[in-house]
Amino acid sequence: MKVSPKIPQIGILGGGQLGRMLLQAAANYPVHVHVLENDTECPAAHLSQVFTKGDIRDFETVYNFGKNLDAITIEIENVNVEALEKLEIEGVRIFPRPAVLRTIKNKILQKEYYRSHQIPTAEFLVTENRRDLEEAADFLPAVHKIGEGGYDGKGVQLLYGKEDLGKGFDAPSVLEKMVPVHKEIAQMVAINEKGETALYPPVEMLFDPELNLLDYQLCPAELSTQTLSRVEAIALSVVKNFNSPGIFAVEMFVDKNGDVLVNETAPRVHNSGHHTIEAHFSSQFDMLWRLILGYPLGNTEAILPSIMINIIGAEGCSGDVYYEGLEEVLKTSNAFVHLYGKKQTKPGRKMGHVTVLSADKQDLLHKSNRIRKTLLPKA
Amino acid sequence: MKVSPKIPQIGILGGGQLGRMLLQAAANYPVHVHVLENDTECPAAHLSQVFTKGDIRDFETVYNFGKNLDAITIEIENVNVEALEKLEIEGVRIFPRPAVLRTIKNKILQKEYYRSHQIPTAEFLVTENRRDLEEAADFLPAVHKIGEGGYDGKGVQLLYGKEDLGKGFDAPSVLEKMVPVHKEIAQMVAINEKGETALYPPVEMLFDPELNLLDYQLCPAELSTQTLSRVEAIALSVVKNFNSPGIFAVEMFVDKNGDVLVNETAPRVHNSGHHTIEAHFSSQFDMLWRLILGYPLGNTEAILPSIMINIIGAEGCSGDVYYEGLEEVLKTSNAFVHLYGKKQTKPGRKMGHVTVLSADKQDLLHKSNRIRKTLLPKA
Repeated sequence: MKVSPKIPQIGILGGGQLGRMLLQAAANYPVHVHVLENDTECPAAHLSQVFTKGDIRDFETVYNFGKNLDAITIEIENVNVEALEKLEIEGVRIFPRPAVLRTIKNKILQKEYYRSHQIPTAEFLVTENRRDLEEAADFLPAVHKIGEGGYDGKGVQLLYGKEDLGKGFDAPSVLEKMVPVHKEIAQMVAINEKGETALYPPVEMLFDPELNLLDYQLCPAELSTQTLSRVEAIALSVVKNFNSPGIFAVEMFVDKNGDVLVNETAPRVHNSGHHTIEAHFSSQFDMLWRLILGYPLGNTEAILPSIMINIIGAEGCSGDVYYEGLEEVLKTSNAFVHLYGKKQTKPGRKMGHVTVLSADKQDLLHKSNRIRKTLLPKA
Repeated sequence: MKVSPKIPQIGILGGGQLGRMLLQAAANYPVHVHVLENDTECPAAHLSQVFTKGDIRDFETVYNFGKNLDAITIEIENVNVEALEKLEIEGVRIFPRPAVLRTIKNKILQKEYYRSHQIPTAEFLVTENRRDLEEAADFLPAVHKIGEGGYDGKGVQLLYGKEDLGKGFDAPSVLEKMVPVHKEIAQMVAINEKGETALYPPVEMLFDPELNLLDYQLCPAELSTQTLSRVEAIALSVVKNFNSPGIFAVEMFVDKNGDVLVNETAPRVHNSGHHTIEAHFSSQFDMLWRLILGYPLGNTEAILPSIMINIIGAEGCSGDVYYEGLEEVLKTSNAFVHLYGKKQTKPGRKMGHVTVLSADKQDLLHKSNRIRKTLLPKA
């Protein structure tokens, strides 16, 4: 008699929009998904088979959540790594491995990882406190990034000259030479337990010069063949040296000399892969399930070129959200709207995204520009 | 002060795979979905915001489920129509309107609807009992369909000659002249509350001659321009005369003379629209949410041609399911696998589907044929 394999029980630490989109994709496969998150009304809560309310940063909570699961993944780095290490020893498969999380969570360790693996990255110093920073004044202009605890743009200060030193952190931090950025790109890479890899086409970020917010993301990035090869080789080097299965977003700068420098890596599904839901044969969410469930890697090819626009809570608006312009945007041909189900908007909060598909770049730019101006989370 | 609109509360009667795919699509929009279904382990149970265990055929259960909702839709026709009629009077929006369900649920009323609206359909007689049937022997070869209660191929008998009369139903039924079928096609039509319509390209069914099971479904159907116009005009006539918003699958025959005849209509998302998830800009599931939430109609255009293969429980296999060949099929480039999370397989049960996208028809046929032979639900 053949024994039917039992349904894999997989945990996600965190229940935000990344968890939500992971769960939309999970429903294509035989898998039971458990979510751990403190907010019972989070975007992913209702879509999981089992929701556990709890703090993803607490050792006991994470350990108890994970001890009977087959595998665990994350949708945010700020989780209890010690619990994941214990679970890994006890045989739970972790995507990515806790050692990688430990390196990436700390911006000092992350930069040292790049240096020790000969991965090109902006020149940097480590400052333990404000005095170290003041002694490094000659290193400016530079970016000061706090080692631990910086998220979503917090914990980062741009220091152009000595007059900015007071904005720096009096805690272990990295001071990175400011790069004369030509393009900011991101390369998603999937790597399975056998070490097989799949690369998505890199995307190019188009920033709003006034707000310094990510506005559009074009796929594929417009790069020379030579730069593209360089980007792919560097991203593969970053990912392979981690010795961990998972999906990774390697964020890079192409500087004004055409050199490629790694900025940061996220060891998980990522904002820069949202367009893959509709624009690619296997989305980043589908791909992560394939990795976790031991299936073959998916097809990363684009079906059509795309632009992704983040829908961000407007300045001066906080409270119960409604979406101005939603109907207008839903009239746009080939635009895919994703709203994350967050009850409250606040300035800068990611409330959703829209992906536009088109073979015509002008059509993409035109539509995405109109969408950005039209679809506004208001309170 | 502006009042934020409250999140729409929408109910689905039934929690099978259609509900599951509706819920995957719902997570793109600000909506709370409630599911009513007797089986707490049904495919849609865990994906809804609110799951209610109960019988969709019971008046009180359906009425109580619906009375505080903004709108209700169905994923199966076999629901309590009286409760929906009461809810409609009380202001709950129903997709489709209960009057349509009443017509469609009864195969006699459905055929009479086609006749009274001059919609071409196979010639038919109504038989109240076995004696009526025997008196209609000259009408054979014909198909005998029971008026109420026939589902999933049950309640249908093919009567080629007098020797088959014993297989007919001793209950109110329709006796339809057998059509010399050239092609069997389905046309999905969406119609909103303003009466605006959107048509998907029709699909063509390719049956397995031995099992008489739906195996493949090709999109777009290969039809002459003239036949395509005829198909669209007939489908629009079927849908518009219902005077109800909703999404409809109009199943038609193209006979050997090139005439188009309506076979049956389903007033809901339907098996013949599954390929729209990946192959079209707005899927049938996305489209139904647009209708219910009052958004503009979606874009029904195909991104690429596609074939959809149903994954059906094999003969002689009943019990806890596992999927033979799943890894092999997941290696197929541009194949999208959907397994519905049913715990048990049994012969003929729909366990999942796979959609393949390709601009090359030979590639579609080759891949879908291999998938059908490879991916087997076993127990």
